[in-house]
Amino acid sequence: MAPSRSLIALLHGPDKPGLVARVAGWIFERGGNILHADQHNDPEAGVFFQRVEWEPRAVAPGQAPGAEAAAFAQFAATLGMAAHVTSAAARPRVALFVSKADHCFHDLALRWRAGEFACDIAAVVSNHPDLAGAARTYGLPFHLVPVTPATKSEAEARILAILREGGAELAVLARYMQVLSADFLKAFGRPVINIHHSFLPAFAGGRPYHQAHERGVKLIGATAHYATAELDDGPIIQQDVVRVTHRHSVEDLVRKGRDLEKMVLAQAVRWHLESRVLAYGRKTVVFD
Amino acid sequence: MAPSRSLIALLHGPDKPGLVARVAGWIFERGGNILHADQHNDPEAGVFFQRVEWEPRAVAPGQAPGAEAAAFAQFAATLGMAAHVTSAAARPRVALFVSKADHCFHDLALRWRAGEFACDIAAVVSNHPDLAGAARTYGLPFHLVPVTPATKSEAEARILAILREGGAELAVLARYMQVLSADFLKAFGRPVINIHHSFLPAFAGGRPYHQAHERGVKLIGATAHYATAELDDGPIIQQDVVRVTHRHSVEDLVRKGRDLEKMVLAQAVRWHLESRVLAYGRKTVVFD
Amino acid sequence: MAPSRSLIALLHGPDKPGLVARVAGWIFERGGNILHADQHNDPEAGVFFQRVEWEPRAVAPGQAPGAEAAAFAQFAATLGMAAHVTSAAARPRVALFVSKADHCFHDLALRWRAGEFACDIAAVVSNHPDLAGAARTYGLPFHLVPVTPATKSEAEARILAILREGGAELAVLARYMQVLSADFLKAFGRPVINIHHSFLPAFAGGRPYHQAHERGVKLIGATAHYATAELDDGPIIQQDVVRVTHRHSVEDLVRKGRDLEKMVLAQAVRWHLESRVLAYGRKTVVFD
Amino acid sequence: MAPSRSLIALLHGPDKPGLVARVAGWIFERGGNILHADQHNDPEAGVFFQRVEWEPRAVAPGQAPGAEAAAFAQFAATLGMAAHVTSAAARPRVALFVSKADHCFHDLALRWRAGEFACDIAAVVSNHPDLAGAARTYGLPFHLVPVTPATKSEAEARILAILREGGAELAVLARYMQVLSADFLKAFGRPVINIHHSFLPAFAGGRPYHQAHERGVKLIGATAHYATAELDDGPIIQQDVVRVTHRHSVEDLVRKGRDLEKMVLAQAVRWHLESRVLAYGRKTVVFD
Repeated sequence: MAPSRSLIALLHGPDKPGLVARVAGWIFERGGNILHADQHNDPEAGVFFQRVEWEPRAVAPGQAPGAEAAAFAQFAATLGMAAHVTSAAARPRVALFVSKADHCFHDLALRWRAGEFACDIAAVVSNHPDLAGAARTYGLPFHLVPVTPATKSEAEARILAILREGGAELAVLARYMQVLSADFLKAFGRPVINIHHSFLPAFAGGRPYHQAHERGVKLIGATAHYATAELDDGPIIQQDVVRVTHRHSVEDLVRKGRDLEKMVLAQAVRWHLESRVLAYGRKTVVFD
Repeated sequence: MAPSRSLIALLHGPDKPGLVARVAGWIFERGGNILHADQHNDPEAGVFFQRVEWEPRAVAPGQAPGAEAAAFAQFAATLGMAAHVTSAAARPRVALFVSKADHCFHDLALRWRAGEFACDIAAVVSNHPDLAGAARTYGLPFHLVPVTPATKSEAEARILAILREGGAELAVLARYMQVLSADFLKAFGRPVINIHHSFLPAFAGGRPYHQAHERGVKLIGATAHYATAELDDGPIIQQDVVRVTHRHSVEDLVRKGRDLEKMVLAQAVRWHLESRVLAYGRKTVVFD
Repeated sequence: MAPSRSLIALLHGPDKPGLVARVAGWIFERGGNILHADQHNDPEAGVFFQRVEWEPRAVAPGQAPGAEAAAFAQFAATLGMAAHVTSAAARPRVALFVSKADHCFHDLALRWRAGEFACDIAAVVSNHPDLAGAARTYGLPFHLVPVTPATKSEAEARILAILREGGAELAVLARYMQVLSADFLKAFGRPVINIHHSFLPAFAGGRPYHQAHERGVKLIGATAHYATAELDDGPIIQQDVVRVTHRHSVEDLVRKGRDLEKMVLAQAVRWHLESRVLAYGRKTVVFD
Repeated sequence: MAPSRSLIALLHGPDKPGLVARVAGWIFERGGNILHADQHNDPEAGVFFQRVEWEPRAVAPGQAPGAEAAAFAQFAATLGMAAHVTSAAARPRVALFVSKADHCFHDLALRWRAGEFACDIAAVVSNHPDLAGAARTYGLPFHLVPVTPATKSEAEARILAILREGGAELAVLARYMQVLSADFLKAFGRPVINIHHSFLPAFAGGRPYHQAHERGVKLIGATAHYATAELDDGPIIQQDVVRVTHRHSVEDLVRKGRDLEKMVLAQAVRWHLESRVLAYGRKTVVFD
């Protein structure tokens, strides 16, 4: 568990000599102590990435708790770096999107209740009423927003209002069977994590288990990625696979796939909540 | 190790009641003893598949050793089944195709020398001279057949002659960097196993590690499949993956991929040599 | 899904020629059709094992549905084989044992509700009251039976009464933190599946994650096995592992281990319920 | 590939605030540029670990190339840290120990020849003559040193002389079937990596595949560790497992295990050669 007072910064920008020393020096000079630091540079792109977690000097009584985070972001800017600074104690507000399948929903909700995710769940949004009761069991507010081709833009407007009202800082599509429009993603302006039930880029699009069965692959997979305007093409956060054989029917693939989807999505959400994921271009850097 | 006298049959044909009993009964009545039997039916296609290994009654002094195998194939035909019957003691003759990369070649040759593969290596065919010395170390005949766009059909004719002269019953493309033509595959008329350095169907075609790196996948794979006229689309025998991260360069993927390629290709070749693989349509049944 | 009319037999006994043919012949002669058959022989022990699933001829109106199963068992006895025959449509009654940890309980209950397990849950038995509410959510009868060293035999007598009253044919210890006595196991006389949170035989006994952390292993595991009088030494049904590093604290191992425990236990229970597991001596044959 | 001029330091010592900043600052002030830095602290032991790789300012014509490494080690001492500093361009001299089994030997030799290991192979030491020819193929000096209980100390003295003469900085036991004495390990005073053919601590000691087969485990493993005076108990560098079933005989386990042993040992050696492994107590920190 991260100590509650520590700060976490995710930085990236043009690589140049001395960045590690400059960041570490800044923290040290202000009485902070680095707990973890991990960096990466992409030599082709010439980009430097860093995740640094530190315990700042105790805040004076009258001082704003967010002051040090803001000061760091300002400092990073002088290095030409974009910085996203969060408190390890922060509990981001998360919206879960579901449809009818409940396995990812229960898995996320149980992990959340068990304390595996440091977040608050602001809302459960669904285009079907099926999981209303399940949401109630966990004490989570359930919002039914049916979507039809004709009402899609209205529905997205309603969802956007729900997210804003709930203060959602992250949306997790837990087998939500609607494609969110580019306009919606832009308007929300926060990360959206999706789980795709295939080993992307193989079997993008619909009915991936049917596609996998037809092709006769020996492994099936699941992929958690950030949703972007281009379907199934956003930066990949986590993937995993499981072995299948000729004995497995499509139904078996669906069943085995459920376990994969749960594990892969939960891992991606956990990493995101711990400020371990930095998306850039079509890729991610995961500081695990 | 399979006892040297046993026979192995791979059967397939339209499913109907009583096939297991009919096959087992035929063997039993002739004094044979089933050592292993495994079957599968594809309910969608209505096809029955079986691999059965049995020890026939001792052959009388004057009797041809292949008689029982031929009798079984004839019996299977009366059930409407196609049967491929081999002796467990048979050592199929195999041709290895290589180019410049040597990792799969050494891996296969060392396993062969260690007795992991029950086969004889009839020929090593290459479009480059690089591995001539390595082939010599293992005492294997090396045939250099350069291929250019202009000379491709002549080269394939030469290769075909080499395979026929060597009595090759299987060709293994151990990172052979030429595409064999549909005409060649048809003329050879025997199975050809290829190793593709990606998790097919993702990243088919050339430079799969570059494609994987660019896409930012979190696992890379390798696929062993039977070569067909359609590139990278033949029935998949075996696949595996290994985890990669943002820290891995294309060179790292190439290095990690070498280990995958070796393992996956060796497993596919071993299964094939043990008569465990039955290809049908775009798929395989692997009785492992 | 197995067709509801089919029967499944698990057989074992001294190996001798013709067993496969005799079994297949018996089924065929009575108008049955084999759907799956898988066999194994242990050459060292000289034991033959088989799982055969078949659809018997439609039962005549006045005929008892269990008659064919009984007839098969009788036939198997004439071959010197012990047979356990069940109907694929049967729903065995299962008792779940829990303590305070809820992850395996929720996982099993959700899979059961999703139809992954063909069983009825007869009772939830616990030595702690913590999961009473959770059991209620799933509509499952919860029995609190506290256990202290002084009251252990009384407690086990109460548990035995609960199992008998509920008609339990299988007990699943879903992180139940009490050791069941040899007397209890004998009196119950039905299989008991336990999940141990280590890769047995490594780290048998208590606090396996602490042991693993102290030893600095690079993989941690979980093991599902049949409980026997000898602690952590019963026949292993399933095992799996996950990679850990020096960065993981004991708490991280516990968290990662929870996922392993869920997956491994669920797989073992599923295999058992599908009559795929045959225990003999300290080992199992798993016909998957 | 690490740039040839860079230095790599492995540091450890009592944790205290500001270590990351102090190290980064020292490098920066002297005109160096950090390429990679990774650290870990063990909160229970209160120990800080760091691997830092940096490119120092270009060395002036008359300056000794090792001066910067020595200066860093001296600086680290002022922080209370032990430091091991190497040049990324260095090629440590390695001695391979073998007996009769050749799979690990060929695997290491081929990887070395393919450039996967940045080292020179100073000697191949064996207690059997079997691999003399194989060593010759790779152009490696082979030293036959038979060992009997009666001659063990003499044999070890001869081996020590060979290692010293060859300037060996690392010994790799590639299925060497002799236990090196505590005296030998002390006298050599350099790291010794061993591969054990089980998932330690399970099945320590002899004939691990037989033990695993008898116990009926569902996964078998291999473990690479530093050899210490206590048999099979040294700090673990890498482990991996592969799935087995009831169908696998001891011979199958041996065959499957060979692949595991090769992969696990090669990975451990590679990490060690890249200065990624820091052993402390019974554990390792692996900066991968």
